[in-house]
Amino acid sequence: MLDAIKYPAAPLWTGDFYNEGINRENLFDKLKEECGVFGVYGHPEASHLCYYGLHALQHRGQESGGICTSDGSQFHYHRGMGLVKEVFDNDKLSSLEGAVAIAHVRYSTAGESKLANAQPLVFKYREGDLAVATNGNIVNAPEIRKRLERQGSIFQTSSDTEVVAHLIARSQHDDIVEAVRDALAELNGAYAFLFMTNGKLIAARDPHGLRPFVLGKLGDAWIFASETCAFDAVGAEYVRDIEPGELLILDGAGMKEDRFSPSLKRAVCAMEYIYFSRPDSDIDAVNVHSARKRMGRQLAMEAFVDADIVTGVPDSSISAAIGFAEQTGIPYELGLIKNRYTGRTFIQPSQELREQGVKMKLSAVRKVVEGKRVVMIDDSIVRGTTSLRIVNLLREAGAKEVHVRISSPPFKNPCFYGIDTPDRKELIASQKSIEEIRKAINADSLHFLTKEGLIESIGRLSDEEHGGHCTACFDNVYPTQVPNDEETAAAACGGCD
Amino acid sequence: MLDAIKYPAAPLWTGDFYNEGINRENLFDKLKEECGVFGVYGHPEASHLCYYGLHALQHRGQESGGICTSDGSQFHYHRGMGLVKEVFDNDKLSSLEGAVAIAHVRYSTAGESKLANAQPLVFKYREGDLAVATNGNIVNAPEIRKRLERQGSIFQTSSDTEVVAHLIARSQHDDIVEAVRDALAELNGAYAFLFMTNGKLIAARDPHGLRPFVLGKLGDAWIFASETCAFDAVGAEYVRDIEPGELLILDGAGMKEDRFSPSLKRAVCAMEYIYFSRPDSDIDAVNVHSARKRMGRQLAMEAFVDADIVTGVPDSSISAAIGFAEQTGIPYELGLIKNRYTGRTFIQPSQELREQGVKMKLSAVRKVVEGKRVVMIDDSIVRGTTSLRIVNLLREAGAKEVHVRISSPPFKNPCFYGIDTPDRKELIASQKSIEEIRKAINADSLHFLTKEGLIESIGRLSDEEHGGHCTACFDNVYPTQVPNDEETAAAACGGCD
Amino acid sequence: MLDAIKYPAAPLWTGDFYNEGINRENLFDKLKEECGVFGVYGHPEASHLCYYGLHALQHRGQESGGICTSDGSQFHYHRGMGLVKEVFDNDKLSSLEGAVAIAHVRYSTAGESKLANAQPLVFKYREGDLAVATNGNIVNAPEIRKRLERQGSIFQTSSDTEVVAHLIARSQHDDIVEAVRDALAELNGAYAFLFMTNGKLIAARDPHGLRPFVLGKLGDAWIFASETCAFDAVGAEYVRDIEPGELLILDGAGMKEDRFSPSLKRAVCAMEYIYFSRPDSDIDAVNVHSARKRMGRQLAMEAFVDADIVTGVPDSSISAAIGFAEQTGIPYELGLIKNRYTGRTFIQPSQELREQGVKMKLSAVRKVVEGKRVVMIDDSIVRGTTSLRIVNLLREAGAKEVHVRISSPPFKNPCFYGIDTPDRKELIASQKSIEEIRKAINADSLHFLTKEGLIESIGRLSDEEHGGHCTACFDNVYPTQVPNDEETAAAACGGCD
Amino acid sequence: MLDAIKYPAAPLWTGDFYNEGINRENLFDKLKEECGVFGVYGHPEASHLCYYGLHALQHRGQESGGICTSDGSQFHYHRGMGLVKEVFDNDKLSSLEGAVAIAHVRYSTAGESKLANAQPLVFKYREGDLAVATNGNIVNAPEIRKRLERQGSIFQTSSDTEVVAHLIARSQHDDIVEAVRDALAELNGAYAFLFMTNGKLIAARDPHGLRPFVLGKLGDAWIFASETCAFDAVGAEYVRDIEPGELLILDGAGMKEDRFSPSLKRAVCAMEYIYFSRPDSDIDAVNVHSARKRMGRQLAMEAFVDADIVTGVPDSSISAAIGFAEQTGIPYELGLIKNRYTGRTFIQPSQELREQGVKMKLSAVRKVVEGKRVVMIDDSIVRGTTSLRIVNLLREAGAKEVHVRISSPPFKNPCFYGIDTPDRKELIASQKSIEEIRKAINADSLHFLTKEGLIESIGRLSDEEHGGHCTACFDNVYPTQVPNDEETAAAACGGCD
Repeated sequence: MLDAIKYPAAPLWTGDFYNEGINRENLFDKLKEECGVFGVYGHPEASHLCYYGLHALQHRGQESGGICTSDGSQFHYHRGMGLVKEVFDNDKLSSLEGAVAIAHVRYSTAGESKLANAQPLVFKYREGDLAVATNGNIVNAPEIRKRLERQGSIFQTSSDTEVVAHLIARSQHDDIVEAVRDALAELNGAYAFLFMTNGKLIAARDPHGLRPFVLGKLGDAWIFASETCAFDAVGAEYVRDIEPGELLILDGAGMKEDRFSPSLKRAVCAMEYIYFSRPDSDIDAVNVHSARKRMGRQLAMEAFVDADIVTGVPDSSISAAIGFAEQTGIPYELGLIKNRYTGRTFIQPSQELREQGVKMKLSAVRKVVEGKRVVMIDDSIVRGTTSLRIVNLLREAGAKEVHVRISSPPFKNPCFYGIDTPDRKELIASQKSIEEIRKAINADSLHFLTKEGLIESIGRLSDEEHGGHCTACFDNVYPTQVPNDEETAAAACGGCD
Repeated sequence: MLDAIKYPAAPLWTGDFYNEGINRENLFDKLKEECGVFGVYGHPEASHLCYYGLHALQHRGQESGGICTSDGSQFHYHRGMGLVKEVFDNDKLSSLEGAVAIAHVRYSTAGESKLANAQPLVFKYREGDLAVATNGNIVNAPEIRKRLERQGSIFQTSSDTEVVAHLIARSQHDDIVEAVRDALAELNGAYAFLFMTNGKLIAARDPHGLRPFVLGKLGDAWIFASETCAFDAVGAEYVRDIEPGELLILDGAGMKEDRFSPSLKRAVCAMEYIYFSRPDSDIDAVNVHSARKRMGRQLAMEAFVDADIVTGVPDSSISAAIGFAEQTGIPYELGLIKNRYTGRTFIQPSQELREQGVKMKLSAVRKVVEGKRVVMIDDSIVRGTTSLRIVNLLREAGAKEVHVRISSPPFKNPCFYGIDTPDRKELIASQKSIEEIRKAINADSLHFLTKEGLIESIGRLSDEEHGGHCTACFDNVYPTQVPNDEETAAAACGGCD
Repeated sequence: MLDAIKYPAAPLWTGDFYNEGINRENLFDKLKEECGVFGVYGHPEASHLCYYGLHALQHRGQESGGICTSDGSQFHYHRGMGLVKEVFDNDKLSSLEGAVAIAHVRYSTAGESKLANAQPLVFKYREGDLAVATNGNIVNAPEIRKRLERQGSIFQTSSDTEVVAHLIARSQHDDIVEAVRDALAELNGAYAFLFMTNGKLIAARDPHGLRPFVLGKLGDAWIFASETCAFDAVGAEYVRDIEPGELLILDGAGMKEDRFSPSLKRAVCAMEYIYFSRPDSDIDAVNVHSARKRMGRQLAMEAFVDADIVTGVPDSSISAAIGFAEQTGIPYELGLIKNRYTGRTFIQPSQELREQGVKMKLSAVRKVVEGKRVVMIDDSIVRGTTSLRIVNLLREAGAKEVHVRISSPPFKNPCFYGIDTPDRKELIASQKSIEEIRKAINADSLHFLTKEGLIESIGRLSDEEHGGHCTACFDNVYPTQVPNDEETAAAACGGCD
Repeated sequence: MLDAIKYPAAPLWTGDFYNEGINRENLFDKLKEECGVFGVYGHPEASHLCYYGLHALQHRGQESGGICTSDGSQFHYHRGMGLVKEVFDNDKLSSLEGAVAIAHVRYSTAGESKLANAQPLVFKYREGDLAVATNGNIVNAPEIRKRLERQGSIFQTSSDTEVVAHLIARSQHDDIVEAVRDALAELNGAYAFLFMTNGKLIAARDPHGLRPFVLGKLGDAWIFASETCAFDAVGAEYVRDIEPGELLILDGAGMKEDRFSPSLKRAVCAMEYIYFSRPDSDIDAVNVHSARKRMGRQLAMEAFVDADIVTGVPDSSISAAIGFAEQTGIPYELGLIKNRYTGRTFIQPSQELREQGVKMKLSAVRKVVEGKRVVMIDDSIVRGTTSLRIVNLLREAGAKEVHVRISSPPFKNPCFYGIDTPDRKELIASQKSIEEIRKAINADSLHFLTKEGLIESIGRLSDEEHGGHCTACFDNVYPTQVPNDEETAAAACGGCD
């Protein structure tokens, strides 16, 4: 979130620090997945565990990956652009020695992005080496950055992580734990932080618990991850979710459980359940697939429609679609199929070929949908362009009717907490009525899940003591202070860091 | 199928002509997918259509890809190891000029394989340039090859395709169509062939129609593909399945529909419906997903078991699992999840890490299966090792009972028609009773779909006139002559060519 | 040399079998270097020796490299496009097991060329595996190929090597040595052949000894190479040059020295001394650098000119320039310098930048040549375009006079023996008088070495018994039958195979 | 120069910030080449000019390359590991828009090094974007860095350049020119700096002129380079050497010639003439090849020896060897030859193969040296290991006597000004007498050029007014304050930044 004043016209410059040519048109068809963090304390094959852990978190970021290990006296470090399996080979992994490690995957924007922004970031400061990895977004990073620049700081990345490193280095405290406390005290935002020195691993989760962050165990080693699916991948046992405002410090003396902030009202990101997290992960002890299936059932109860088949938009809406089918008794069918082999390097068809019908990623299955009344379940509508495209695919394949059911409320407000959302005026639900959206996406009918239905479906214990969810993107109620609308263009989250 | 005498102990040497180090242990966990062919006659962007078509057929082969175009006077040609998106970039694709093209994807064995075997193969012979691409397997290729070698032929690949090219070159006929006829007359096997010269495109399907092969249209251009999903990908319209024994000849005079063989009893490969083809494809006008769902329903009728959840082994068994769930009313759940980002270059975990529980590709979802009686649907059991692993995954995740239901009959006999199967004695169903298999895979109960149930589920018009299916892998009834058991080791299909 | 009739207009199509876009304009600035062969019999690290041997022969071919080893029962094989160091890594090299190996580097044309043409070529025929590597050119390959095609042979490469493999496979003899004899008996041309089976290594040199080929020893192992510099690279001892018409057979019984042809008049390629071979190599026991220096001295005696400095065109003309300087007492200076880092992947400057003076490969050193009368020594003039460019470089850098002295006679006739030469009508010396050439290249004076001076400088024992040199490119006297002028365009050597 | 206290045992850690595995044994066979800078102001194809300019400076650094352009409002930036031709392709180059650019090549250490250290470095600070590229070394960077760290600065590279950026950011002046002045005022060392903002290009050379830095013109554009050979490469005209202590400022108002320091005694690095610079470059109007040839002549006068041939160690000693030969009348011969194709990725031979005589880079030419008394000219002896190896090569090739003549005085003292030298105690001339060195390198005789002879040979106008050379590595007289011996290990130059 750097330098809002100089770049007012380019709210998305973050992933594009020195302008390597983002294709803006492709940016918002879908919400961008965020980042994922993974950490190990006390396992002889720490770097290999990071590799498998990051791989399990790959859905949270396909742009870049990195691992930094400490052997107790020095760091070993590698990062690169691409999927985890592309960034690391066995030689590189084996050269990352040490029993302590932090690791990171970063999300992919449509354009090229900078290796310099790949995490973990590694710094030297007066007390030695420091590595930092984070998932989330610091809302007030632009102001802090400006203040630091006025004080003579230089920045080499557009990452919030660098801001935090500056705060640590400028702390009055020499002790890293105290310096981290000083830095966190200045932050307003959503984050799961892992800090590493040659001696300590420190984990911190934002005071509202906006971003998921879990603690696990593998033998005597402690494991940290954005999602529990990474524990399953490495054979680790889930211990508990890290508490909002909690500070965990691991060193030779063991793990110390501390806090850097009092307990604020918990506000777990609802979109993690709806769209981002892997279905086999549990957040706050609630399984994501099961929550999604309940959303589908709830949606069926709220907005039943008589139809011949139910189909989900792969992959994230399959669970909800099955829930809808089970609740209604309308058979679930594979009306849409996704090509698994599409990826970053894929050659886009020419305009002409596209008009002739060349498709790459998603196809409708003619035999399944032809002549049918179809209920199409999707998890959200952002700008509406993707929804229109999918409805049309179904119609071209012969669907008689297409009834769209969305397993979340209308998405109306930008996220400032780590999800890459467009400007408010590009969010279709912020600009149009439900009926207008229905027309815009060419659907026969359209219904969104209610916020109450959503909360009910997630089913987390959600009360005064446990706190609730962040549903700001639906209801405009942000758990922290956020920029007003004039500032939004500059400060809205351009990705996680 | 080369040199059976010298390599008797290595039935799979085919993908390994000069021994580049196959990891044999990984070879048979799963039946290997076959190859895919795609062809275009009369479209200015033929090479681009091939790219998107091959991409849609990528599930049939991930080892290598190739495209050969003809601009009428010469060939333009590129092939390489890897996924289609890795083999081609825009420059390469654009350099492949011409309105006629044939293209191919080849399946991936565990070890490295030879670029030399990648198709299309391109030859010079007395009449000029010839390109050939095929999906299938020629049962009598080893004998023909030996005869040709005795006559002084040399071979540079281990591919059956090269054998056919030799037969064409040695034909008494100068006319390519007659020469192709001569060559096909000598073949016993399963195949979808595309031949191209600078002037003609020729398509031929084996007299039993063992391998799928369809004809489509895109504007004025004719399109050929192994599966209809490739038509959807390029916006082409399905015209019809190519007839067994049919020979289609395209040149400046248009398309000529001819035959090279009388109509034999049709024997469409049942495994295409069960496992190989993409669910959105139609074979002989029957949609694959729908057939699989019916197999699941049929299986539920044949072998009901009371349970808490139904889960399918991703991806190929999801349709059958949903059918089973719908038929029984037991909820379908995401009990198993597959990591989408695993691929060829993935670093395998060390033995130690594997023992500690590191998993890469498939995980069981604890929250979903814990304490539950689980019905696990899979499409087939080959050697049983994969099934055992998955059952154990479910048990470790807390499943109370695991009932395995297989949506095909016991797989007992090797395939000679293009599917890479192990030796008969490695096929668990050929060596053990159902009860013994149940124990070997650690299941609480185990049932296979009956052959009758399978045929019923597929639902193709199947009678004297239309012919039936090849179910030789289940019932040992091969539609063509095949080697006896002593010859099997050498001649069994080591992959498609 | 394939299919002369169909491609009459494209004498160079050989490196361009299926037309991957040669940039013809760049083809003839300089004679193309040929290929190099290397072989090992009886060393446990045969593949590694090949690697270092090929590396020493890299100047003979930068397009592709390949190694095939035999462990006694099977082949291990790898080849690829690019420099030896790019084609092989340690893993690949170590996987090439066995104590017997043959290896090859292939020259680079300006355009892309086909991996399929990279050598060694490996074949299966009735007697098993066969690998072949060669340097040279078979003059009558087109006729043999046509005959073989009429007999039903198919060709997958444009290489003469494949023709020879066909001849071996079609021999009446089962014994490989006899079959090789049969094949060689049909050939007219220049060649150094290495054949390998799982059991034997066979070496053969053409009856005139046109192409260099030497035998060495490393401990108990036998080593074969195109040039002695490869022996120095691997620490092997030079034993002797292989005799013209000689056939060396190595197997478990040791080395058998035999002949496949009577001794014909020896005709060692003079261009190997003038330009192709590495200066530290010896051909027929004459050191190349020393021969070149003598050419320079001789040139000084034949065509003295008073000047301030002598400079050579790097790298091949440095030795001759030093000889000229020593003979005349005119100081040798570094008037021209070559950038070592230019290579295949270099980005060519735009026309505009070129006009502004951007240079990539060769620069004149202003401080050295400014105001000076310069003698510029070069080894040959092919089309004259390069010479003109270099003279102009020197003039732009301030040279007062530029006197060009060429250390070989005028190059007037195409080579059919493995050197990639243009059409006779593009050879400037074939079309223009010396005075016309002088004007065309903008020199103040121009002299070529006489043929007698050349032979004298080389200093090989050259008489009835020892035979002489091939100087056909200078005097049109070819040691073998060659095509007449109408056939030339099709048959002239498009590179070594 | 970072963190001297924590890494006292590893003077070379600089290129190895987070320890990616340097092979220390290979580090000091030869002095490492330094870095090169190139800049353009006012040319529409600035990035392309940088490409060709860097290519001409490639001998100064093969590790990494980078270009940063400014289009007036923003930066465009790319850098990468490897040769210039590997780092850039046409697309990347064309995406670097703008008429102003700075560019850099960095030297290669034996081990892997960090992309993070590749230059130009690009920063954001309160005034906007800043790019910096430099050749040289800041002697007091470690102290400044420590002071900055104490003030809360963080460092992401081990480069001195980052130190300078911090100083600029912390300057009291907002104006970039004044801020640069403030920063330079704190530096003690050797440097050629290029600074760029979106508006200005600033060049500065250290007050002693230790590192070369020249100004040129191409039409209306200004060009900056480490050596004049880069001007020849792009067709630019040499204007003058930049003055020691000079500050050139280019912006819309044209070029302003200013100073940041009074004129100190000029001390041009003598090793640039002896070894580093390209022979076609001129430093302070003296051509490098000519200077080297004079060193060879002078060496012949100082230390004549009767011999049969003179040979130089390629490439840097060829000029001196020719000078020696011309002076003595002993013929210059190609006794040693270097393989042009060796490079970073080359596979090292096993110990066993090395003992059998496998060589990769340098060979002696037996035919040339056998039975001869050889004068071997080299430019310097650092640790003596390379010299011993080369003398032994010549002896193994049959040289009767080997007389070593070095075209520079004994190298006794570490460099603090940008040349990567080992510890004083590893410098053989610092530890042993000439006679002891002679024995250590197995030479029959050994002589070094005298310092007086060196200065005389270079022939620069060298007096009170013009100043002299830095010959500290020979005579221990450093033009600036340098660390005392205890500090040396930490502060000695680990490469240019």
